[in-house]
Amino acid sequence: MVNETQHTCSASSSSKSDCGSSSGSESSKDSSRCSTPVLDADRHERLREKMRRRQDSGDKWFSLEFFPPRTANAAVNLISRFDRMGAGGPLFIDVTWHPAGDPGSDKETSSMIIANTAVNYCGLETILHMTCCNQTKDDITGHLQKAKRLGLKNIMALRGDPAGEEWEEEVDGFNYAVDLVKHIRNEFDDYFDICVAGYPKGHPEAESYEADLRHLKEKVFAGADFVITQLFFRSKTFLKFMKDCQAIGITCPIIPGIFPIQGYHSLRQLVKLSKLEVPQEIKDVIEPIKDNDAAIRNYGVELAVSMCRELLDSGMVHGLHFYTLNREVATTEVLKRLGIWKEDPRRPLPWAVSAHPKRRVEDVRPIFWASRPKSYIYRTQEWDDFPNGRWGNSSSPAFGELKDYYLFYLKSKSPREELLKMWGEELTGEESVFEVFTCYITGEPNKNGHKVTCMPWNDDPLATETNLLKEQLEKVNRRGILTINSQPNINGKPSTDPIVGWGPSGGYVFQKAYLEFFTSSEIVTALLKVLKKYEFRVNYHIVNVKGQNITNAPDLQPNAVTWGIFPGREIIQPTVVDPVSFLSWKDEAFALWIEQWAKLYEEESPSRMIIQYIHDNYYLVNLVDNDFPLENCLWQVMDDTFELLN
Amino acid sequence: MVNETQHTCSASSSSKSDCGSSSGSESSKDSSRCSTPVLDADRHERLREKMRRRQDSGDKWFSLEFFPPRTANAAVNLISRFDRMGAGGPLFIDVTWHPAGDPGSDKETSSMIIANTAVNYCGLETILHMTCCNQTKDDITGHLQKAKRLGLKNIMALRGDPAGEEWEEEVDGFNYAVDLVKHIRNEFDDYFDICVAGYPKGHPEAESYEADLRHLKEKVFAGADFVITQLFFRSKTFLKFMKDCQAIGITCPIIPGIFPIQGYHSLRQLVKLSKLEVPQEIKDVIEPIKDNDAAIRNYGVELAVSMCRELLDSGMVHGLHFYTLNREVATTEVLKRLGIWKEDPRRPLPWAVSAHPKRRVEDVRPIFWASRPKSYIYRTQEWDDFPNGRWGNSSSPAFGELKDYYLFYLKSKSPREELLKMWGEELTGEESVFEVFTCYITGEPNKNGHKVTCMPWNDDPLATETNLLKEQLEKVNRRGILTINSQPNINGKPSTDPIVGWGPSGGYVFQKAYLEFFTSSEIVTALLKVLKKYEFRVNYHIVNVKGQNITNAPDLQPNAVTWGIFPGREIIQPTVVDPVSFLSWKDEAFALWIEQWAKLYEEESPSRMIIQYIHDNYYLVNLVDNDFPLENCLWQVMDDTFELLN
Repeated sequence: MVNETQHTCSASSSSKSDCGSSSGSESSKDSSRCSTPVLDADRHERLREKMRRRQDSGDKWFSLEFFPPRTANAAVNLISRFDRMGAGGPLFIDVTWHPAGDPGSDKETSSMIIANTAVNYCGLETILHMTCCNQTKDDITGHLQKAKRLGLKNIMALRGDPAGEEWEEEVDGFNYAVDLVKHIRNEFDDYFDICVAGYPKGHPEAESYEADLRHLKEKVFAGADFVITQLFFRSKTFLKFMKDCQAIGITCPIIPGIFPIQGYHSLRQLVKLSKLEVPQEIKDVIEPIKDNDAAIRNYGVELAVSMCRELLDSGMVHGLHFYTLNREVATTEVLKRLGIWKEDPRRPLPWAVSAHPKRRVEDVRPIFWASRPKSYIYRTQEWDDFPNGRWGNSSSPAFGELKDYYLFYLKSKSPREELLKMWGEELTGEESVFEVFTCYITGEPNKNGHKVTCMPWNDDPLATETNLLKEQLEKVNRRGILTINSQPNINGKPSTDPIVGWGPSGGYVFQKAYLEFFTSSEIVTALLKVLKKYEFRVNYHIVNVKGQNITNAPDLQPNAVTWGIFPGREIIQPTVVDPVSFLSWKDEAFALWIEQWAKLYEEESPSRMIIQYIHDNYYLVNLVDNDFPLENCLWQVMDDTFELLN
Repeated sequence: MVNETQHTCSASSSSKSDCGSSSGSESSKDSSRCSTPVLDADRHERLREKMRRRQDSGDKWFSLEFFPPRTANAAVNLISRFDRMGAGGPLFIDVTWHPAGDPGSDKETSSMIIANTAVNYCGLETILHMTCCNQTKDDITGHLQKAKRLGLKNIMALRGDPAGEEWEEEVDGFNYAVDLVKHIRNEFDDYFDICVAGYPKGHPEAESYEADLRHLKEKVFAGADFVITQLFFRSKTFLKFMKDCQAIGITCPIIPGIFPIQGYHSLRQLVKLSKLEVPQEIKDVIEPIKDNDAAIRNYGVELAVSMCRELLDSGMVHGLHFYTLNREVATTEVLKRLGIWKEDPRRPLPWAVSAHPKRRVEDVRPIFWASRPKSYIYRTQEWDDFPNGRWGNSSSPAFGELKDYYLFYLKSKSPREELLKMWGEELTGEESVFEVFTCYITGEPNKNGHKVTCMPWNDDPLATETNLLKEQLEKVNRRGILTINSQPNINGKPSTDPIVGWGPSGGYVFQKAYLEFFTSSEIVTALLKVLKKYEFRVNYHIVNVKGQNITNAPDLQPNAVTWGIFPGREIIQPTVVDPVSFLSWKDEAFALWIEQWAKLYEEESPSRMIIQYIHDNYYLVNLVDNDFPLENCLWQVMDDTFELLN
């Protein structure tokens, strides 16, 4: 009886069949489209399956907790922190829920939107916290529906802090987390993975430690999939708790919550909020150094590392959950010292995947958005189906327009003043624009001594791969071939290559050389003459802001420019030059001149007019050298063009 | 008015829109499956479009006429003639219709079945002749429906010879070819391309040459797409006819029918049938040499070549239609001397495509049927959809069972006595079977002095490509690794490579090394030990006749073993090792031991029992070396296996 009501802590075989029927794999199964080679099981598993697989393989993991930011700027920063910390390979992140902060709203600082961004735009497996106390059933159902719609698949079900001083049960209301767990299972069946909180010292409001254990068992038996604990200060606290849980029949994963002490005040505040007591031996160390932040942080890291080691060495712990307080340094250091931070994360595909369930079959994208994956995801968010196997025919769904440049996850990380320093307080002509591009490529400071670390088309410094082309890129940018995207040709490097590799090991990756740039009509005229000589070796698309389009592509077929050959697999071709989507990208690429650059300057100012002139008159060009086994001929094309111009 | 009723001889723009709405492209358009890269426009065009494109490009073409054979054996021979003459690149072939021979039936010698075989199994664009005189509307509609169902897209609409001596018009019947043309257009809209006959000297029964021209115009204006003429002996006859046609407004293609004189008697018979007169200058040459077949044929070739040259040089003729009389030599020689026989036909894909409209999107097949494409087509004839882009998921339609080994297009070209000479009148043990395999590989005669030019799994001598592996294959076959399929690894050879190339020029083709063989359980045991060492470098599938299956493939995904990279295209991967279809192939491969080999011998005879023993006890093995850029390791695997056995 008891075992029947318990949810996922059961044998893996029954859970596996669960997953087949409910995990969202319906999208690929029901579809008559061709199936996608399974390159990365991770993308197709739900969180509890990933956890189980890691446990079975003995592969230790970690997860990271964040709270929603207070301001829009802080949101921008948090998202880039997600990207950086995501690179270390957390199994999931979670985003806390604060009823006072309108957590289910569409505000860029809401829990819902931050979690949405983490899943969809940063590709992170994400748990959204949700509290139920003092909320109506409709409100909660509404939040859950919204979360599902946004692609969230995991909920941490919490009671939340009661509003008043003296809290009283409401009849038929949500009084405890277990009510929320039951509600989720009733209303959403097995759609969500559910996490609940465990208290290694017992919940401060519980009648007793034993009573609290029983509450936890109730939550698990009501349908929770795993437990994350409140922070604690000694490993033996957790290990005792874990044994006590097992003793009363809680067999699902219980993940210890780790809090690396990062400062005197934050510790005091947290301890106060969670009604915990700091052990005397810790107080003894901290009190004398309470004004020395660095010393405290170092101690905190030491302490966390040794506690985590004890936990992992116990054999009872497979994953560690970190309370980051939205900070990077301490947690990252602990993880690195534990050796579970991925120093060289393997890329499953050449681009950053999204974790939305409907995108798990996505395996091909146009190369144009290579540096703007979030914008690509945004513009395709309404698609029901994702090109799988191949780009699909040209009548595929249209791209959404990109008018929302203000959206925090599409905005530059750098503030206006910094952009002006990089891109020029005052432009004197097209040449000053050439200089900005050139400095971005070389990494040298501009004439005012500022390094150019981002461009309107690329918010990050040059990719390692692009560095392979640095010298040639510098040369052409100086002369007004303003490059915004490029890749070298690759003729079968191992898929484990640290720079150009992707996908599982044992494979080989290939690329056709690609170059994309803005340039003047004068250069385009010369370029077209030169390109005649190369015939079909070089495919080109040349378009201006009005959409006048010149190409030698024989039809509207995409050109595969990145592909990989793996053992026992069909060919994977994740990146294409697609003539149809190029025209959608063109709108975005031209608009970025205005939205990100021209608008830094006063209207009618000479600087603004220079950018406006480029926007109105330049062409956007892309070139593919189809002869990938030979030396990249695109630089010869450039040289020939300059020679013709001389 | 007149122009409105005329069908396709109008400007190409209007015809193009015709084609979009009716040419069968609906199958790919309505489907939600991903589209296929257009590698070969030919496969997607209807005949009249191909003709127009050839005319526009100035690329001269030819076509070949055959009549249905009298016997089943002759049918087998005709089909291999189709394969050989198809290699020369005819734009189409046509199959004549003889009311007395039950032409619409399912007999293997019927016009319908021969045309069906040409389209579906030989991949030839085919015109089926059809006569209407003395037939009911229902009969004719029935024939047309059947033709459509079989994938035939072109009809030559003829009156046919009246049954009685004195022919009279039937009221409301089919009295002339024009009635059939109208009927086809009424009942089948634009589905078929329609051809009609033209008589350069006027139809013998017409009131006059001019009256006959008017009849032709009627046929064209009723919806015919092009005209093929009766044979003639002087180029000026045709050129005058052509000008006369144009003068009265017939603007569609008119294709001259060429009859290379091949013998005295066949000439006399044909001339009698068609009520033509042989010009005196020809008679003067032929009469004195009428008993010298070779001399007449040489003269016929000379004559045909010089007449064809005059026609082509006139600038009015773009294609030549040959009355082959089901013979190969004379026509092939004329075509070679004219330089329009394709000496080195480019393979659009590594396997022989079918011309059935529903298969025009087909672009991937399992490697197993590489030497038995007709059987593959037969076993998948009921499929509605063809794997396009990728093999598709494993729940794809099941293969039809192959029980019809007797079907003439699946049968060996060699009669029983020849097979016995090649494969042994009497087998003395498994070793005599090893010897047969070895002789097939080496091309050396067997111990009775007979060359082994075919095997149950391969009706043709070893492919040029397999020759690359000859030495190693010989070695392993001698020791009981009985190979039936193999390909070398290829790391980016030009797509124009004469041996391994395929697809349009400017591309690169790749292969993973593949080896498929039958072998004893003793060797399998050793092999499995050896394979452990190679881990995922080598994927294997090992199965016996009962279906016991051993594999290291991680799941049911296909492994791409042949692929090509082309300018401006997505990756094409036409050949895969698919674990699911391997089990269907297994049934066929094992059955061939019995059907083709064991059954040559008496029941209970020792020879038969040897083959039966192999069938019952051997394993079918396939191996793929995934590391295509390195040296093929499969020979090392074989060596290691033999070493382990020693």
